[in-house]
Amino acid sequence: MSLVIVGPLAFDAIKTPFGETDKIVGGAAVFAGLAASFLYDNVKLISVVGEDFGDNIEILQRRHIDTSGVEVIAGGKTFFWSGKYHNDMNSRDTLATDLNVLADFDPKIPDSYQDCDYLLLGNLTPRIQIDALDRLQSKPKLIVLDTMNYWMNSALEDLKAILKKVDVLTINDSEARQLSQEYSLVKAAAKIAEMGPKYLIIKKGEHGALLFSEGQVFSAPALPLADVFDPTGAGDAFAGGFLGYLARVNTINFSNMKNAVIYGSAMASFCVEKFGSQRLETLTQEEIAGRIQQFVALSRFEISE
Amino acid sequence: MSLVIVGPLAFDAIKTPFGETDKIVGGAAVFAGLAASFLYDNVKLISVVGEDFGDNIEILQRRHIDTSGVEVIAGGKTFFWSGKYHNDMNSRDTLATDLNVLADFDPKIPDSYQDCDYLLLGNLTPRIQIDALDRLQSKPKLIVLDTMNYWMNSALEDLKAILKKVDVLTINDSEARQLSQEYSLVKAAAKIAEMGPKYLIIKKGEHGALLFSEGQVFSAPALPLADVFDPTGAGDAFAGGFLGYLARVNTINFSNMKNAVIYGSAMASFCVEKFGSQRLETLTQEEIAGRIQQFVALSRFEISE
Repeated sequence: MSLVIVGPLAFDAIKTPFGETDKIVGGAAVFAGLAASFLYDNVKLISVVGEDFGDNIEILQRRHIDTSGVEVIAGGKTFFWSGKYHNDMNSRDTLATDLNVLADFDPKIPDSYQDCDYLLLGNLTPRIQIDALDRLQSKPKLIVLDTMNYWMNSALEDLKAILKKVDVLTINDSEARQLSQEYSLVKAAAKIAEMGPKYLIIKKGEHGALLFSEGQVFSAPALPLADVFDPTGAGDAFAGGFLGYLARVNTINFSNMKNAVIYGSAMASFCVEKFGSQRLETLTQEEIAGRIQQFVALSRFEISE
Repeated sequence: MSLVIVGPLAFDAIKTPFGETDKIVGGAAVFAGLAASFLYDNVKLISVVGEDFGDNIEILQRRHIDTSGVEVIAGGKTFFWSGKYHNDMNSRDTLATDLNVLADFDPKIPDSYQDCDYLLLGNLTPRIQIDALDRLQSKPKLIVLDTMNYWMNSALEDLKAILKKVDVLTINDSEARQLSQEYSLVKAAAKIAEMGPKYLIIKKGEHGALLFSEGQVFSAPALPLADVFDPTGAGDAFAGGFLGYLARVNTINFSNMKNAVIYGSAMASFCVEKFGSQRLETLTQEEIAGRIQQFVALSRFEISE
């Protein structure tokens, strides 16, 4: 049994009010993979990089992540994204998006990945998400799809096709409103459920996350932070932590889903503490356990009457 | 022992995407008073109305609220506010603000109100809040102040003076940022604590509320609602429910404060279900108990490892 993540590996150049970076390692697969690796020990990646990615793959291998599904294109250049965050850290401008080898990404599934029980289809062209899923010989126990407004604008039919095949969708609140054409998130959740996913997670950044399923709803807080250093990858770290927890407990029900949302939120809260994947690279199990206790303290109340 | 609320009584005319009202009863004192009356049975109001308010005072008296501190100005006209909510229900345009008798509001404290242990200084000119507090012969056990950005812009020195004298401040997130000049709510809370209030409640509407005190933080969810019919008064209903709960349990600590935030959130969630104070007028204890259980289900998770 394994947890497989399909998603981009990238170089990112990031400007925030706290500083800026040259090209550092990024991409959904890095953030999700690192986050998942702290909760589950058989994590495998499917991605593509250019020859320039070089030794950076060791960031993943040091966390015992299987990278045999990461294709290296000889002479190719790795996907590059550059962005600048505004003072509120909630909005950003994209300065550059050079798809490079990602433009022709054709996901290949090593035979050793066919034991996949937990699949994360990270934010990518819906067509590639469909191809990756079709190439698995048996349907995973749980499929999580992450996507964004860009694909709702440019590839809505493919997105609707993959939505029919997944169990969990993670998007943010404005994307939920766009996809459903409903302002109320309760109504949005009901409409999105009709599109396929049994579980919907609406990510609200500093306002936490909502989990909807079959008339039930759970509200997870976000940890109030003194400093958000770099929001890049927080949503991917959330998805990795979420699915890593579920793979570990290996039982799908609403109660475990709620806990998984808390673990995802915890991993996202670490991610934003440093630039890029730096914080996730150095995380310890003790720090994670402590952060989970912070989430318990943050949200627990006891009304006795 | 009593719970005293100082705040405006008003006529409101409201337009929302769901409809519009002629002049209906409104004002912070109505919403806060009604909400508090379901949780504590000795609620007293200090306010001012014009002769045109007439029998509307019975809305409060039917809930056994003491209105002997509501001054009626012969020949005067009651404060009138009119607003139009946008489709997102989070932003609104003010169409009219006719202060009328509120312009010369000089709060008078009946002798029978001098048993006040719990005081809510509803959203008003800070100068009037100071006067009301000064006219109480003994300091209440707990003083809650509600205010808004308008007073930060127009009466900051008076606001800072009253902040030094109160225990709890309730404001929204953008107001917390404005008052503290800090974007991070954690840093904002630390700065505002230095201004006086031991407890800070940051109201975030559909995103819930945060309670800060002495390095502790609690995040209360908002109940996801299919329809928000009219947001007017939600913040006042929150404050009334919050203080009503604390008066009932009559012990001030962080644990009770957390519960009080949940009760306040529950009363706010009822308030928005109909126009004006209609929903609060017809509420039952059974409905409140059921709503509290919804908040428990919404936020409870059990991580055993």
